[in-house]
Amino acid sequence: MRARDLLADFPTVALDTSVVDAARMLADQDLPGLIVVDDTGSPFTILPGTQVLRLAVPGYCQDDPALARVVDEPHADAFLQALDGRTVREALPRQPRELPVTDPEATVLELAALMARTHSPLVAVVDGDRRLVGAVTLQALLDRVLAV
Amino acid sequence: MRARDLLADFPTVALDTSVVDAARMLADQDLPGLIVVDDTGSPFTILPGTQVLRLAVPGYCQDDPALARVVDEPHADAFLQALDGRTVREALPRQPRELPVTDPEATVLELAALMARTHSPLVAVVDGDRRLVGAVTLQALLDRVLAV
Repeated sequence: MRARDLLADFPTVALDTSVVDAARMLADQDLPGLIVVDDTGSPFTILPGTQVLRLAVPGYCQDDPALARVVDEPHADAFLQALDGRTVREALPRQPRELPVTDPEATVLELAALMARTHSPLVAVVDGDRRLVGAVTLQALLDRVLAV
Repeated sequence: MRARDLLADFPTVALDTSVVDAARMLADQDLPGLIVVDDTGSPFTILPGTQVLRLAVPGYCQDDPALARVVDEPHADAFLQALDGRTVREALPRQPRELPVTDPEATVLELAALMARTHSPLVAVVDGDRRLVGAVTLQALLDRVLAV
């Protein structure tokens, strides 16, 4: 069993998608994360659901829980709306990190190790030209591995 | 809007649950993660889905993708079965880390910051005696925040 046997089409967002639209897509389609593609359609980054949320959380709240607590309830409730059109490109963190991207020949063990290491319940599968051919989700992987 | 308004009952696993049963619960109930409780019913740890998978991935594959690739396909397919009754307690990593646990008064911004920081799409909510009163999922949080 290889990535090619497990992959499925997966919706993508562009770098110019707004963070609110990205969050809405994640919620409405109950996705484990999002694949952000560049202008050529290649994966630019993969964002697990928690890191889509991170795009929307003000920087001063991300590292200090005490600072998140001082924001009053009405402002906290509206934190997503406060982004006001901010795009994924503008909100992405600068630091590079290992991306959960692999090729169609990856085994289930490679996929599992990649998901665990990158904390991503979603792996993008690309061909030799780095074109996106689909994605493997944690659910799809577990369903197949448990059926062995 | 506070954690108490968003929380719902959430299934738990014990430290003596087998890793395979934990993975099956995650897959069958389509959960974003698992709450592991100790003998008193208090949260011992919270495992995002990717970290449940991590319990099942051999140590030598976790940090080196090349080593995962040398395992042949039949053995890779059976990696979960190879655990053979290993319990969650036996598989948990030793290093302490910040747990996604909060109190019922946490705002949605605190919940979002906690999920982003701990890479957990699941936050356990405990009372003053650290008893589990429920959990807030990333989906529940986004659904409510997007509806504001």
